[in-house]
Amino acid sequence: MTMTNAFYAQSGGVTSVINASACGVIQTAREHPDRIGTVFAGRNGILGALAEDLIDTSHESAEAIAALRSTPAGAFGSCRYKLGSLEKNRHQYERLIEVFRAHGIGYFFYNGGGDSADTCHKVSQLSDVLGYPLQAIHVPKTIDNDLPLTDCCPGFGSVAKYVAVSTLEASLDVRSMCATSTRVFVLEVMGRHAGWIAAAGALAASHGIPVVVLFPEVPFDQPAFLARVDALVKQHGYCTVVVSEGAHHPDGTFLAEQGTRDAFGHAQLGGAAPVVAQMIKEGLGHKYHWAVADYLQRSARHIASATDVRQAYELGQRAVEMALAGHNAEMPTIERISDSPYAYRIGSAPLDQVANHEKMMPRDFISEDGWGITEACRRYLLPLIEGEDYPAYRHGLPVYATLRNVAVDRKLPAFDLG
Amino acid sequence: MTMTNAFYAQSGGVTSVINASACGVIQTAREHPDRIGTVFAGRNGILGALAEDLIDTSHESAEAIAALRSTPAGAFGSCRYKLGSLEKNRHQYERLIEVFRAHGIGYFFYNGGGDSADTCHKVSQLSDVLGYPLQAIHVPKTIDNDLPLTDCCPGFGSVAKYVAVSTLEASLDVRSMCATSTRVFVLEVMGRHAGWIAAAGALAASHGIPVVVLFPEVPFDQPAFLARVDALVKQHGYCTVVVSEGAHHPDGTFLAEQGTRDAFGHAQLGGAAPVVAQMIKEGLGHKYHWAVADYLQRSARHIASATDVRQAYELGQRAVEMALAGHNAEMPTIERISDSPYAYRIGSAPLDQVANHEKMMPRDFISEDGWGITEACRRYLLPLIEGEDYPAYRHGLPVYATLRNVAVDRKLPAFDLG
Repeated sequence: MTMTNAFYAQSGGVTSVINASACGVIQTAREHPDRIGTVFAGRNGILGALAEDLIDTSHESAEAIAALRSTPAGAFGSCRYKLGSLEKNRHQYERLIEVFRAHGIGYFFYNGGGDSADTCHKVSQLSDVLGYPLQAIHVPKTIDNDLPLTDCCPGFGSVAKYVAVSTLEASLDVRSMCATSTRVFVLEVMGRHAGWIAAAGALAASHGIPVVVLFPEVPFDQPAFLARVDALVKQHGYCTVVVSEGAHHPDGTFLAEQGTRDAFGHAQLGGAAPVVAQMIKEGLGHKYHWAVADYLQRSARHIASATDVRQAYELGQRAVEMALAGHNAEMPTIERISDSPYAYRIGSAPLDQVANHEKMMPRDFISEDGWGITEACRRYLLPLIEGEDYPAYRHGLPVYATLRNVAVDRKLPAFDLG
Repeated sequence: MTMTNAFYAQSGGVTSVINASACGVIQTAREHPDRIGTVFAGRNGILGALAEDLIDTSHESAEAIAALRSTPAGAFGSCRYKLGSLEKNRHQYERLIEVFRAHGIGYFFYNGGGDSADTCHKVSQLSDVLGYPLQAIHVPKTIDNDLPLTDCCPGFGSVAKYVAVSTLEASLDVRSMCATSTRVFVLEVMGRHAGWIAAAGALAASHGIPVVVLFPEVPFDQPAFLARVDALVKQHGYCTVVVSEGAHHPDGTFLAEQGTRDAFGHAQLGGAAPVVAQMIKEGLGHKYHWAVADYLQRSARHIASATDVRQAYELGQRAVEMALAGHNAEMPTIERISDSPYAYRIGSAPLDQVANHEKMMPRDFISEDGWGITEACRRYLLPLIEGEDYPAYRHGLPVYATLRNVAVDRKLPAFDLG
């Protein structure tokens, strides 16, 4: 059997565990030196392949690769760049083949979300269309948890844990102070299309916290919302609102796009949280505080879910095993066997069924009144935030790996991306 | 020696470790059953004393009290309420004496910041002025780190750790994506008067992160700031801005008060971070993201500094020991012996020298150019964020104590606070 090199790249918004998948891919590849030669990583995702800007991961020590498991963000750089269709952008795909051929690459591992699955699917077709032998396996990753055919997506469990823990902690703060000070705390979380992340905030409710969640799935009803907050403050003395960045009015306008202007007439930068806080102040007169977690939530490796880290690693590992077993155009998936005790196995899905399908939150995960989650949702979420997987610390800060990222000598002429 | 009861209350903004001080006070008091009878806690701080709304902590199990050490926020409730001067508000002080006398209270432990030290000092004078025997000891607490005569204040180290870790993590995220996406990340942190908390963000610089800090101590110079950000983005591809909520223009206007109005003409809620982000977009055209940590930073017990937790506990413990040794009108303090290896001892300071003095950040802690911290500041900060002190977890969430908080029967008529 001929020795074949592999290509690995990270795509789209990074997560606190995408490097754990990279770790799974590279460590597993290194266990098969008879089958896989060098793992080349794309610098800044697929752009690295197009630009022939490859990183030779064989220069990284075993310790450095192992450290990826507990390092957030994208160790090789990621990008937001979607390849066009094979028909209209054939030159891009031909370029990929040139680069792969020049560097003896026969395995393509692409680590990303829905758009990336689409790219990976297109690349998987290259062997047929352009006659170049290549096996393309997609490694799922997205905090949005919206890939189909997998029970969950690596990256999501850790964000969910961050949001659940932060909601609980900040709520205890407000509970302490509500007799004379802040009564309502508003936390804005990510999730433009689906409320998966916001739902995690509702897990604090099982610790007695009065939480109102504003989901993108439920058109915002301001009078009903204010009445709900008012009732909770009357009952508990305080409440916490977890608002998804995708929460929107019935006409589709995001809460964050309230049409606000600064003193110079410029459109004011959003933030659904300050808008909601302002409504509460004007409608109910309560003292409030608000926070916008933004990147903090998706990079918070310090509070990653052990389940999530393990699955991210295992899916990277399985991707390599699938390639070695001769598969192409597939994605390893999480198949849940039971909620409690939590059990899952790793399955696989064909990429043509993954690409361009978004998995929304089931309606029966949102409570009847629209302000919280159901028991079914709680059962789904709890195993995903289970367990702590702390990084090592030195001098008070986590020890995160920064790789050497040694560039491979170019063999081809430059390529014009445009 | 007569058996004497004790009063303990939490005051002002809570922290992730103020309950560790409560734990130190109550556990130490319980070790002296021959000297201290019941520890009564004020429900919602000093308001509990004025309203005779006392909590009998003897109903809490040893396990519940031990769990306070790892529980954020104020277990008995806190308040923002400043007692007036002894001259003008004598009736309030007389009421305190009535309540203390009715419940056999001879020890007064007040856990708070600068304003609370002032209250505690006034209460300490009651024995002389009103002829009631009372020993008042202040237990320091403030994330603002601005109490004088102590090297640091419990609560600060944990916020500093949260900010340093979060800055590092979010910066790695931006570094991964900067080739095609976000180039500047702006994190807003607390600290209206002093830049102690913002300074902690600069600790990420020792991990190679290009960080610009906007301190309240340094009047904002927009052109210089944009030039600095631009230079860092050119050099590193990205940069992170840590802006203190107290950052202000030379005329004293906070950055957060940019005079923005919403569509209805209402003053727009602040947030220095979105204002800074907008400047960067307009001035440099870079894609940005921003976060406002708000309460998340001061309640984040999950990432508390072990040094901070230990000191919070020890200062509560020492407060009781000081009272038993006959002291009054004092506050236990942290006296640093050396930076590295870090060593400190617990000293004490007279309250008349603590109350109404704010300790600002030394000018030589801010770098010459005003955008970062000096080596002296780094040496000061590092021991304070050292060590992790994780809470226990169950089902993916921290196990935080909620006390029974059993009310003591009232013996006195109601009191009109006004």
